[in-house]
Amino acid sequence: MDDPDSRVVSEVRRTADAIGSMEVRGAATIADAAAAALRAQAEQSDATTAADLRAELRAAARTLDDTRPTAVSLPNALRYVLFDLDGETVEAVRDAAVRRATEFCERLEHAQTDLGRVGANRLRDGDTVMTHCHSTDVLACVEAAVAQGKSLSAVVKETRPRMQGHITARELAALGVDVTLVVDSAARRYLNDVDHVLVGADSIAADGSVINKIGTSGLAVNARDRGTPVVCAAQTIKLHPGTLTGHTVDIEMREESEVIDPETAATLGDVRVANPAFDVTPPRYVDAIVTERGQYPPESIVVLMRELFGEATAEPWVEK
Amino acid sequence: MDDPDSRVVSEVRRTADAIGSMEVRGAATIADAAAAALRAQAEQSDATTAADLRAELRAAARTLDDTRPTAVSLPNALRYVLFDLDGETVEAVRDAAVRRATEFCERLEHAQTDLGRVGANRLRDGDTVMTHCHSTDVLACVEAAVAQGKSLSAVVKETRPRMQGHITARELAALGVDVTLVVDSAARRYLNDVDHVLVGADSIAADGSVINKIGTSGLAVNARDRGTPVVCAAQTIKLHPGTLTGHTVDIEMREESEVIDPETAATLGDVRVANPAFDVTPPRYVDAIVTERGQYPPESIVVLMRELFGEATAEPWVEK
Amino acid sequence: MDDPDSRVVSEVRRTADAIGSMEVRGAATIADAAAAALRAQAEQSDATTAADLRAELRAAARTLDDTRPTAVSLPNALRYVLFDLDGETVEAVRDAAVRRATEFCERLEHAQTDLGRVGANRLRDGDTVMTHCHSTDVLACVEAAVAQGKSLSAVVKETRPRMQGHITARELAALGVDVTLVVDSAARRYLNDVDHVLVGADSIAADGSVINKIGTSGLAVNARDRGTPVVCAAQTIKLHPGTLTGHTVDIEMREESEVIDPETAATLGDVRVANPAFDVTPPRYVDAIVTERGQYPPESIVVLMRELFGEATAEPWVEK
Amino acid sequence: MDDPDSRVVSEVRRTADAIGSMEVRGAATIADAAAAALRAQAEQSDATTAADLRAELRAAARTLDDTRPTAVSLPNALRYVLFDLDGETVEAVRDAAVRRATEFCERLEHAQTDLGRVGANRLRDGDTVMTHCHSTDVLACVEAAVAQGKSLSAVVKETRPRMQGHITARELAALGVDVTLVVDSAARRYLNDVDHVLVGADSIAADGSVINKIGTSGLAVNARDRGTPVVCAAQTIKLHPGTLTGHTVDIEMREESEVIDPETAATLGDVRVANPAFDVTPPRYVDAIVTERGQYPPESIVVLMRELFGEATAEPWVEK
Amino acid sequence: MDDPDSRVVSEVRRTADAIGSMEVRGAATIADAAAAALRAQAEQSDATTAADLRAELRAAARTLDDTRPTAVSLPNALRYVLFDLDGETVEAVRDAAVRRATEFCERLEHAQTDLGRVGANRLRDGDTVMTHCHSTDVLACVEAAVAQGKSLSAVVKETRPRMQGHITARELAALGVDVTLVVDSAARRYLNDVDHVLVGADSIAADGSVINKIGTSGLAVNARDRGTPVVCAAQTIKLHPGTLTGHTVDIEMREESEVIDPETAATLGDVRVANPAFDVTPPRYVDAIVTERGQYPPESIVVLMRELFGEATAEPWVEK
Amino acid sequence: MDDPDSRVVSEVRRTADAIGSMEVRGAATIADAAAAALRAQAEQSDATTAADLRAELRAAARTLDDTRPTAVSLPNALRYVLFDLDGETVEAVRDAAVRRATEFCERLEHAQTDLGRVGANRLRDGDTVMTHCHSTDVLACVEAAVAQGKSLSAVVKETRPRMQGHITARELAALGVDVTLVVDSAARRYLNDVDHVLVGADSIAADGSVINKIGTSGLAVNARDRGTPVVCAAQTIKLHPGTLTGHTVDIEMREESEVIDPETAATLGDVRVANPAFDVTPPRYVDAIVTERGQYPPESIVVLMRELFGEATAEPWVEK
Repeated sequence: MDDPDSRVVSEVRRTADAIGSMEVRGAATIADAAAAALRAQAEQSDATTAADLRAELRAAARTLDDTRPTAVSLPNALRYVLFDLDGETVEAVRDAAVRRATEFCERLEHAQTDLGRVGANRLRDGDTVMTHCHSTDVLACVEAAVAQGKSLSAVVKETRPRMQGHITARELAALGVDVTLVVDSAARRYLNDVDHVLVGADSIAADGSVINKIGTSGLAVNARDRGTPVVCAAQTIKLHPGTLTGHTVDIEMREESEVIDPETAATLGDVRVANPAFDVTPPRYVDAIVTERGQYPPESIVVLMRELFGEATAEPWVEK
Repeated sequence: MDDPDSRVVSEVRRTADAIGSMEVRGAATIADAAAAALRAQAEQSDATTAADLRAELRAAARTLDDTRPTAVSLPNALRYVLFDLDGETVEAVRDAAVRRATEFCERLEHAQTDLGRVGANRLRDGDTVMTHCHSTDVLACVEAAVAQGKSLSAVVKETRPRMQGHITARELAALGVDVTLVVDSAARRYLNDVDHVLVGADSIAADGSVINKIGTSGLAVNARDRGTPVVCAAQTIKLHPGTLTGHTVDIEMREESEVIDPETAATLGDVRVANPAFDVTPPRYVDAIVTERGQYPPESIVVLMRELFGEATAEPWVEK
Repeated sequence: MDDPDSRVVSEVRRTADAIGSMEVRGAATIADAAAAALRAQAEQSDATTAADLRAELRAAARTLDDTRPTAVSLPNALRYVLFDLDGETVEAVRDAAVRRATEFCERLEHAQTDLGRVGANRLRDGDTVMTHCHSTDVLACVEAAVAQGKSLSAVVKETRPRMQGHITARELAALGVDVTLVVDSAARRYLNDVDHVLVGADSIAADGSVINKIGTSGLAVNARDRGTPVVCAAQTIKLHPGTLTGHTVDIEMREESEVIDPETAATLGDVRVANPAFDVTPPRYVDAIVTERGQYPPESIVVLMRELFGEATAEPWVEK
Repeated sequence: MDDPDSRVVSEVRRTADAIGSMEVRGAATIADAAAAALRAQAEQSDATTAADLRAELRAAARTLDDTRPTAVSLPNALRYVLFDLDGETVEAVRDAAVRRATEFCERLEHAQTDLGRVGANRLRDGDTVMTHCHSTDVLACVEAAVAQGKSLSAVVKETRPRMQGHITARELAALGVDVTLVVDSAARRYLNDVDHVLVGADSIAADGSVINKIGTSGLAVNARDRGTPVVCAAQTIKLHPGTLTGHTVDIEMREESEVIDPETAATLGDVRVANPAFDVTPPRYVDAIVTERGQYPPESIVVLMRELFGEATAEPWVEK
Repeated sequence: MDDPDSRVVSEVRRTADAIGSMEVRGAATIADAAAAALRAQAEQSDATTAADLRAELRAAARTLDDTRPTAVSLPNALRYVLFDLDGETVEAVRDAAVRRATEFCERLEHAQTDLGRVGANRLRDGDTVMTHCHSTDVLACVEAAVAQGKSLSAVVKETRPRMQGHITARELAALGVDVTLVVDSAARRYLNDVDHVLVGADSIAADGSVINKIGTSGLAVNARDRGTPVVCAAQTIKLHPGTLTGHTVDIEMREESEVIDPETAATLGDVRVANPAFDVTPPRYVDAIVTERGQYPPESIVVLMRELFGEATAEPWVEK
Repeated sequence: MDDPDSRVVSEVRRTADAIGSMEVRGAATIADAAAAALRAQAEQSDATTAADLRAELRAAARTLDDTRPTAVSLPNALRYVLFDLDGETVEAVRDAAVRRATEFCERLEHAQTDLGRVGANRLRDGDTVMTHCHSTDVLACVEAAVAQGKSLSAVVKETRPRMQGHITARELAALGVDVTLVVDSAARRYLNDVDHVLVGADSIAADGSVINKIGTSGLAVNARDRGTPVVCAAQTIKLHPGTLTGHTVDIEMREESEVIDPETAATLGDVRVANPAFDVTPPRYVDAIVTERGQYPPESIVVLMRELFGEATAEPWVEK
C-alpha cells in the first residue's frame, strides 16, 4: 500500500491547519473539528482493505494530533473515534469510525447543557457559590439552576493575574445572580458563608487530580478546612488520557508581564517573577466532578476515562 | 480638686493632636509618643496629692486614647505606663510613671532589632522564606539573618489589592536575598520549596489568633497542609489588650476602588465588591510568634500580654 | 396504537395500589413487588410490536413510580427491569424484561444473606462493633459472623428520638452478642474500644455520600478522629439513581413530638423544634460499603450503580 | 500544742456538715462557704503562735475537704485561702488568711457576671450559638450579650439522658433568644449555621482538657471539622488542682435508669447499660476558655491555675 | 462421568508439586506456572462434553490452589483463566481456557516492564524517591525512569528486621541513582526533601487498602502529614480477590529471632517479641496505585479487580 | 579589680575539667556539679565588693559553660544560680547565689522522683504504654505507677540504630511490666492497643517542640492519627534556654557504622548513610509534658522556662 500519510484527505489537512493556526480554538471546538475530520477521512477514503483504511485513519489522527500537543480535548476526540476499528471489511471499519465520530459530535453538542443540568441539581434555591477564574462549564451549571427557578448568590474571586473573575462576575450578574467580587486572598474569609466552591478544570488526571487555574488547590484546601464542598464542573473531553499511563501534566509558565508591568518590575531590583498558569488539586480536596455523563467522585473518574477513551498505553494512532 | 482633664499638660495635648491628625503614625512611633507624653505629664504636673496625680495621668491617657481608638499600640503604651500607680505620695506615683515610661521607650527603641535577632536565629543558612504583605518586623528578621552571614531566598506574594509585596521584594533584594515574586494564588505551589512562612501582624489576640493582612489565614492553612512552619514576627506593642476580655477585633472594610477601578467596575453590571483589609489566623496554624522578648507558641502569648500590660478588665484610665 | 397507559395490566395496578397504600412496605418488599409487576406486564401483554410492548412497560413503570416517589428501591427495580429493551421483536423485548425481572427478584431474595456474608468476613473473632439506629443489613452481617462461630461484642447507640437502638440491642442480644447500650452522646468515649462502626443506609449517593439516620455523620467524623473504621452495610437497592445526575436527597423533617412531648414543650416558651430524620456522611469518613455484590470504597459505588441501573440522565419510563 | 483538729471552730464544723449533707451545693456556693469557714477559723482562733494557727487552718481545711472529695471548687477555695501562710506572727498569718478568704469570696461574688461580660464580647449581633447541657456560666455570657443589645439565636441540644437542654432552651427563650431545640445527634447538621459552640465545664485539667457533660467532646470534634469555634465558659473555681500533678479526673458512671426505664430494659434481654456522666475534650478542639479573669487558650490555663491556687504537689493541708 | 480429580493431567500435578515445594516461587512465577498448567489441562484433556471439561478445569484449579493458600497471585491466575467457560461445546470451553491462559501469560511477561513505564512517567528529572523494603515493581519504575534519561536520588529505609533496604540500596546505586540509606525511624526527617514515597505491595484489598511490609502505613501517614505523595507500584496479580467478599488479609507473624538474637533476648528477662511481617495502609494515605494497566486511585482498584478476575463471591473452582 | 577569671576557685576548675573530660556525665550529674561549683565560688570567694563577686561568679560560669556547649542542663544550672545577683553587698550576692545553688541541687535530687509521681498519676491500672528509646524519666513514671499498685503493659520499640529499647525492655520487665518488644516500624500496628505513648526528651524548645531520639516525631504523628495521647517525661533541666531567643537545636549526625557495618556497606556500592541522632516533634502532636513541677501542655512550657531560668536574651555570664 501507499504511504497512508499521503492518503489523508484534504479536509483533514485543512482542519489540522486551522487548529495549528489557532483559527479553531477552545477545547470543544477543537474536539468537534477533529472528530469531523476523521469522519471525513472515513467517508472520503478510497481504501480497498480494512487494513488500509485503518492505516489512513491513524495517519489522519497523527496529522491532527501533531498540531497542538497540549490540547487535552484533541487526543480525546481522536481516541474516541478510533476506539474500536477491528472490523474485517472496509465497510465495517468505515461504519465504526463514522458512527463513533457522529456520536462524539452529537454528544459534544449537548455536553455543556447536559453537564449544566447535572451541576444545577446539586444547587439549592438560596445557595451561595464561590468561583475561581472563568469556566463556561461552571456558568452552565449556574445558568441551568437559574432556569430551574433557583435564586443564587456568588462570591467571585478576581483570579490574578489575568482577572478572569471579572468575566465571571459580569456573566453571573447578567443571569440575575447576586455577585460579590473579592481579591483571591479574601476567599477564606467568605468560605463559611458559601455552600459550594464551584470550579472548572483545564484537565483531569487519572489519579483524580484536577488541573485548573493557579489558586484552585489553595482554595480547595481551605474549603475542606471550613467544611465547604468543592465541585469541579468539567466535560469529559477534559479527562487527560495521557495520565492513564502515569504521565504528569506540565504546568505552563507564562509571561512575567502578566504579573507585573516592566516599569514597576524595573524598580524592584534583582527580582525574578514566576507565573505558573495552573496548579494541581489532589482528589481528597474535591467532593465531586460534574460531567455531562453525571457526577463522579474524583477517585472514580478513571473508570469513565477508560470507558470513553480506552486504556491503550500508547495512542492508537502511533505506529507500532 | 479641679477637673483633672483641665490639668493635662500641653505636651500631651500636642501629642494627641499629632496622633489624631496622623502626623505621628506607625505603631511604634505612636506608642513612643504616647509614653513620652505621659512621662511629660508626670514630670510637669503640679499635683499635690498622689490621688490628684493619678487622676491627671488617667486624664492624659484618655486624651491620648481618644485620638485613634483602633491603633493597638496606643493603649498598650498607656497601659504599660499606668501599670502600677498605687504609690502613696506624689513622688512615688511620679517616679513609677516616669520609670515605666522611660523603660517602655527604651525597650521600644531596641524592640525591632531584638526581635530581628530572635527571628534570625530560627533561620538557617540556605533557607527559603515565603512572605505576605510588607512587615518591618519580618524585614528585621531577614536583615539580622543576613548580618549573621546567612544566605537566604524568598518567595514573595504580591499581596493584592495593594501590592505591598512589591515593597517587600525590593527591600529583600536590596539585602541580597534571592527573590521570586508570585501572585497570591501561586503560594501553595511553592510551599514545598519553602522552609518558613514568615509574616507580620496587625495585632495579636489573647486567644492566640493573629490578625494580619487579608490572605494570611489561607496561606497558613495551606502551609500546615504542606508541613511548612508558620512564624509571625510581631513586637509586643501588637498584642491587643482588649482581647483579654473577649473583645473581637473589627476587620476594616476598605474602598472598592482598591480592588477594581471604577471604569472596569461599571462594565460588570450589578456587582458588589468586598475588600476586607485583614483576616484572623487561629493559633493552631501558627508555629511561633517572634517578639523582642523571645519566641512564644501563640497559645502562650496571653501570658506575656498580661505581664506587660496588666489584666485589668477595663482600661486603667477609664473613670470607674 | 392505543394509549399505552390504558393497556397496563391489572396486576400492575393492584401492585401500585398496594405500594401507594403502604400495604406493601419496606425497601426490599417494594422493589420485589415492582419487578414482579413489570414481569406480569411483559408476560400478559398482547402487544403486537416491540414498540408497543416497550410503551406498555414504560407506562407500567410510570404507574408504579408515581405511588411513592421517595422510595429509592422502587426506581431501582424499574430501572433494572427496563435496562435494555432494544429488541426488535415482541418476543425479544418480552424475554429481556422477564429475564431481568426474574434475575432482579432472585438476587433480591438472596441479597441480604449474601451481604451478611460479606460483612461478616470483615469481622474477626472477639471484635466489638458500634451500631447506630436499626438496620437489618447490619444485623445480617453480625448474624453471619456469629454463624461463622465468631464471638462479638456491641456498643449500641440508643438513637434518639425514636430509640431504634433498643430494637438493635434486643436482636443482637438474642444472637448472643455481648451488648452495651449507651446514649448517643456517649459514642466517642467508647470508640477506642470498638473495632468497627457498622451502620446501614437509607440511601447512597453517586458521589459516595451515605444518607442514613440522623447522627451517622457525627459518629463517622469521630470514628475517623479515633482511628476506628466505618463500614456501611447496604443492599444495592439503596443506591440512589437520581444522584447520578446530581440530584440531592431531600432530608425529611419529622414531627416535633418525636423529640419532645407537647406538654413539656409548652413549658419551654417560644422554642422551635427541628427534627431532621437523616444526615449525609461524606465518603471520606466511610471505609467501605458492604453490598450483596461485595464490598466497595464509597468512592467507587457509582460504578456499581451505573452497571446495575444504567446511567440514563432521565428515568427510562419518562416520555421523551 | 494540742491536737489542731480539736481546735477547729464550730463554724467550720457546721459548714462541713452542710456540705457533706448536700444542704450546701453548687460549685460556687460550696467554694464560698468553705472560704468563709476558713476565715472564721482565722478570726476566731485563740492560737498563740503562727505555727499553731497554721496547723489549725490546715486542720480546718482537712475537715472541709473530707466532706466532698470530688467537688473541684472545694479544694480550690481551700488552696486559695491557704496560699501563703508563711507569716512569722499569729497576726501575720491571720491577716493573710482573712485577706485571701475575703478576696476569694468577693471575687467569687462577681465571677459569673465578669465571666459573662467576657464571653459576651466574643459574640456579635446576629450570631447563633450551639449549646450542650445546661451551664449558668454559658447563660451568663448570653445574658450579658443580650444586655449589650445583641440579638442572638441558639441551637440547643437536648442532652440525653437528663434533658438539661430543656432548661437551657427555656432560659434562653426567656432572654428573647431565638431557640431551636434538637436531639443530640442532629448537632452536626446545624454546625455550619452556627457561629460558636458554647459549653460550660465540670472541671478543667492542667493539660488544657475540658471535662464536661457527656457528648461535649464529640460535638467539639465535629465543630472543628466544620470550622466552627468552640468556647468553654468556666469560672476559675472549675480549674482542677489535682491535675497539676497528673491526676486524671474520674468519670462518674450514673444510674442505668437515667438511660432506659427498667420495664423497657427488661424487654431487651441481656443488655448492659453504660451511663458515663462526662467526657474529656482535648485542648486542640477548644478555641478559648472564658473565665472571670479573661479568656485563655486552653493550653495556657495551667498558668492561671498555678497563679491562683499554687503549684504545690500535695494539698497544703495535708500533714507532711 | 469419572471423578474429575482423577482426570487432572500430569503437568498440572507436577506444577502443583513444584509450587508446593517452593521450587517455583515468587508471585509472577507462580502465577505463570499455574496459568500454563490450566492451559495444559485444556489442551490435553480428552473430555467429551463441555461440562466434563469444565469439571476437569475446576479440579485442576483446586489441585493448584491447595498448594499455597496464601499466595495471592495463584488464585488470580486461576480466576483469570476460568473467567468465562460457559461455552456449549468442548471446543468452545477449551478455546476460551487456552485463550485466557495464553493472554494471562503474555500480559504477565510484559507486566513489570509496562508497570515500570507507567511509574516512570510520574517521576521527573531530578526527583527524589523514598523507598521501604525491596520491591521489583518499584525497581522497574526507577529503572524505566533512568532509561528515560532522568536523574534520580533516593532515600532508602533499611527496613528492619530483615534489612531488605540494603538490597534496594545496592540495586538503585547500580542504576546510577544517588542513594542515602537511613534507619526506618529517620524517614520523617527526610520526607520534606522527598518528592515521592514509592513502595510495593504484598497484596491490595478491594477496599483500596495496601498490604505491604511492616512500616509502610506509618510511613504513609507521615508522608501525608508532610504533603509528600505516596505511590504504590503493584502488578495486578497482587489484587487480592478474596477481599472482594470482605475477607481480611491475615498478617503473618514471623520468628522472634529476626528481631533479636536469642542470646541478647535471654538477657532481657521475661520479654515477648512480636514480629508482624506486614501492615495495612488505608487508601486515604495512598495517592496512586501504579499497575501494568495504568495508574489508579486506590479507591478505584476494585473496578479493575472485578474486570480482571471476576466478582464471584466464591472461587469458581469450588464445588457448588 | 583583678581579672575575675583569675579568681575562679579551684573547685570550679576541677569541676570544669571533670565535665570537659566526660568524667562527669549525664544531664543531672553535670547540672548538679555545676551548681555546686558556683556555690563553692560564692562561699570561697574573697571578693570585697558585690560587683567583684558578681564578676567572679560570671567568670566561674563561663569557665564551666565552655566545657560542653551542647549539654542543655549545664547552662540551665548556671542560669538558675545566677538568676538574681542584684544585691548591693557581698553578703547579699553570696547569700543569693548560695541559696539558689542549694535550692537547685535539692530540687534536682528529688526531681526524677517527683516527676515519676506526676507521670504515674496519668497512668491507670491495666494501661499499656508504648516507649521509644530509653529514658530514666520515663522509667521513673512507670516505676512510680507500679509502686502505686498499678499493673501495666508496655510495647517497647527497639530504637534503631543503637537498640536502646533493649535496655528499656529489660528494666520494665524487671519492674514486673508485661513487655512486648517490636521493631520501630511495627509501632503503628500496636497503637490502637496502647493507652499512652510515653517518651523522654533530649531537650525541649521554647516553641513547645520536643527534641528526642530519632523516630519520636514519626511515632507522635501516628499516635495522633490513631487517637493515642503522647506524653513526654522530662525534667526541667531539659528545657533549652537558647530556644527562648529563637535558636534552633542542632541535630547531631552520628557515625555511619551505627547504621551499617563497614563490610556490609562495602557491598552496597556508592551509597551514603545518614544517621541523625534526634528529631523534632512539634507541640501539636504532644498532649502533655510531665516535669517534676507538674504537667504542662507543650505550648505553655515556655512560661515555666522563663520562670526558672530567666528570659535574658544573652546568657547572664556573658560580658556585656
